[in-house]
Amino acid sequence: MKKIGILGASGSVGMQGLDIIRQHPEDYKLVSFSVGRNIETAKEIIEEFSPSIVSLQNEADTAALTHYDIEVVSGEEGLLKVAAYKENDILLNSILGSVGLRPTLHAIQHGIDIALANKETLVVAGEIVMQEAKKHGVNILPVDSEHSAIFQCLNGEDDKNIEKIIITASGGSFRDKSRAELENVTLEDALNHPNWSMGQKITIDSATMMNKGLEVIEAKWLFDLPVEKIETLLHKESVIHSMVEFNDTSVMAQLGTPDMRMPILYAFSYPDRLPRQGKHLNLAEFGTLHFKEMDLERFRCLKFAYDAIRIGGTMPVVMNAVNEVAVEKFLQGEISFLDIERLIEREMQNHDVIQNPDLEIILKVDADYKSRHYEV
Amino acid sequence: MKKIGILGASGSVGMQGLDIIRQHPEDYKLVSFSVGRNIETAKEIIEEFSPSIVSLQNEADTAALTHYDIEVVSGEEGLLKVAAYKENDILLNSILGSVGLRPTLHAIQHGIDIALANKETLVVAGEIVMQEAKKHGVNILPVDSEHSAIFQCLNGEDDKNIEKIIITASGGSFRDKSRAELENVTLEDALNHPNWSMGQKITIDSATMMNKGLEVIEAKWLFDLPVEKIETLLHKESVIHSMVEFNDTSVMAQLGTPDMRMPILYAFSYPDRLPRQGKHLNLAEFGTLHFKEMDLERFRCLKFAYDAIRIGGTMPVVMNAVNEVAVEKFLQGEISFLDIERLIEREMQNHDVIQNPDLEIILKVDADYKSRHYEV
Repeated sequence: MKKIGILGASGSVGMQGLDIIRQHPEDYKLVSFSVGRNIETAKEIIEEFSPSIVSLQNEADTAALTHYDIEVVSGEEGLLKVAAYKENDILLNSILGSVGLRPTLHAIQHGIDIALANKETLVVAGEIVMQEAKKHGVNILPVDSEHSAIFQCLNGEDDKNIEKIIITASGGSFRDKSRAELENVTLEDALNHPNWSMGQKITIDSATMMNKGLEVIEAKWLFDLPVEKIETLLHKESVIHSMVEFNDTSVMAQLGTPDMRMPILYAFSYPDRLPRQGKHLNLAEFGTLHFKEMDLERFRCLKFAYDAIRIGGTMPVVMNAVNEVAVEKFLQGEISFLDIERLIEREMQNHDVIQNPDLEIILKVDADYKSRHYEV
Repeated sequence: MKKIGILGASGSVGMQGLDIIRQHPEDYKLVSFSVGRNIETAKEIIEEFSPSIVSLQNEADTAALTHYDIEVVSGEEGLLKVAAYKENDILLNSILGSVGLRPTLHAIQHGIDIALANKETLVVAGEIVMQEAKKHGVNILPVDSEHSAIFQCLNGEDDKNIEKIIITASGGSFRDKSRAELENVTLEDALNHPNWSMGQKITIDSATMMNKGLEVIEAKWLFDLPVEKIETLLHKESVIHSMVEFNDTSVMAQLGTPDMRMPILYAFSYPDRLPRQGKHLNLAEFGTLHFKEMDLERFRCLKFAYDAIRIGGTMPVVMNAVNEVAVEKFLQGEISFLDIERLIEREMQNHDVIQNPDLEIILKVDADYKSRHYEV
């Protein structure tokens, strides 16, 4: 029986993590979790899973849970407390954005394995996080479908034999549109992802291809690879979740239906697998799978990500922070779709990079760029 | 440095095995080999690789090699001597047909790992061969691209988690023809395989889909699976060499360009990989991959193979023996393409199965059905 903590339990990945625990009551037990402001969901989770501790974003909300037999904490301190809760065997970190960094590090320092859905953790501080994980003998288990695919392809393999990894990209909501056509797309269009049902932030990141950019950076740290060994490939059906080519020209791939519960369960069950009810992949039903070279001029955010990781230092922090702000502005209807990349490009061009930043500098730059007022 | 023996060194797979040794002189050394009647090739191999022993099919041919510093043997006894040569670390068995069975068993009993390209070995005596391999702690390393793919997909995995394996099939030279159109196809058409460059026997077996049938039976023994867990799928590009679905719905696949040197090298280098120059897979260049449900009425030889392995006993022996004879007759222009499956079907229907045959019975039935006179 593995004991699970979940940060961001009311989000898309968090809820699917709960589903996995629900389907495997003899293998997994929820012992700790956090939500933001979704108190009703918190109540349901407490009633169904009887965990030991919950953290809420706002102290004011804690009163609503006092009649439950559970420790209730709040704020960033509460988040850290849940992350490093002594009974956690694995922490599923499905918080959105760079706010997930501190809890990840805190859990690692307490020897807790991380099932990582919060890619921003590695984007802004990959080097520090992976060093800490190594130091504390902790597994970082990817929950992104792409990184889980690569992780599965590397099962039983020696990393020295990796020639390159190939991350597939559906192309998102606007994959068939030209850049000219992107000028007038709406928020509603952007939120209509062809393959995956995900949260709003990641759906917009998929449409801008920034999601793939974040994944490239995440992969660099997770698999300790130079960025030259990380390719991306357009594959609109999202059936091949990603691939690894080895030095003997053999290519291993992981395939499946688009269901985040698969990578979540794999992170929980690794190095074993557990049976899961779910739709089986039927390639004959698809009939054809499509592949197309990635176009970094069409998908400029992906180019920014390659630039940012090559430049290094605080550049990925700035790229990610401005992206978080810009996506939020787009979701609020304050800026247009293409303004997202325009903002990111401008701020990256104007940023004076600090190399080898420590955690304090990373968090300061992150906070700085998130609190700025941006004019488009 | 691994020392390699090759049975059938002048054949298609044998020559590619020599290529691998040629390209990795610090990793592999040829110490023993056999050829049939191709004495000129035998001379070239001796001059290039300086092995210690060679076996020829006919005693009469041995005189041609007496001036070389090498032990020259011949006939079935010679084949067994090469197979179990004391310096062999691995024996690449790339002999065609069920004549490969005895040497395989002999090598296993001498503790030599087998790189198995001779699928008939497992088709006619899979149970006995795998039992002997287990008993002697010997690895059976598949050299077929499909079985090598499955073997690679199972790397680091627990066999208990296999849901099913999916063997892909290009469909062979006649994949786009209806059954009616098959009545008048020629030998030349049949030998024109769309993806792979292989020997004549296997190219015809691909056209009849018997090759896939033999692979299903081979997979059953190699991976110890009930036949219900072995599926086939039409995939005309032969890019995905085969797949494994696990109990969590995750599907692992191995992909590559059609080059037998890849599975040969993998069998030699397993559990490691060695670098290999070769064409890299470029999925964007393909653009699309196609998949289609297998049709057992269209490809009747595959149905015969499923029937044969379900019936068990000597039935796969009979199916394979009659197929070997029928393909030879087709290659000689004595029978038509569809006569191949007509002959197999008739002989299977008339065969009185012997269950749990020992090696002696298997070889007797095999010899019996190969020496019969068949009228179409």
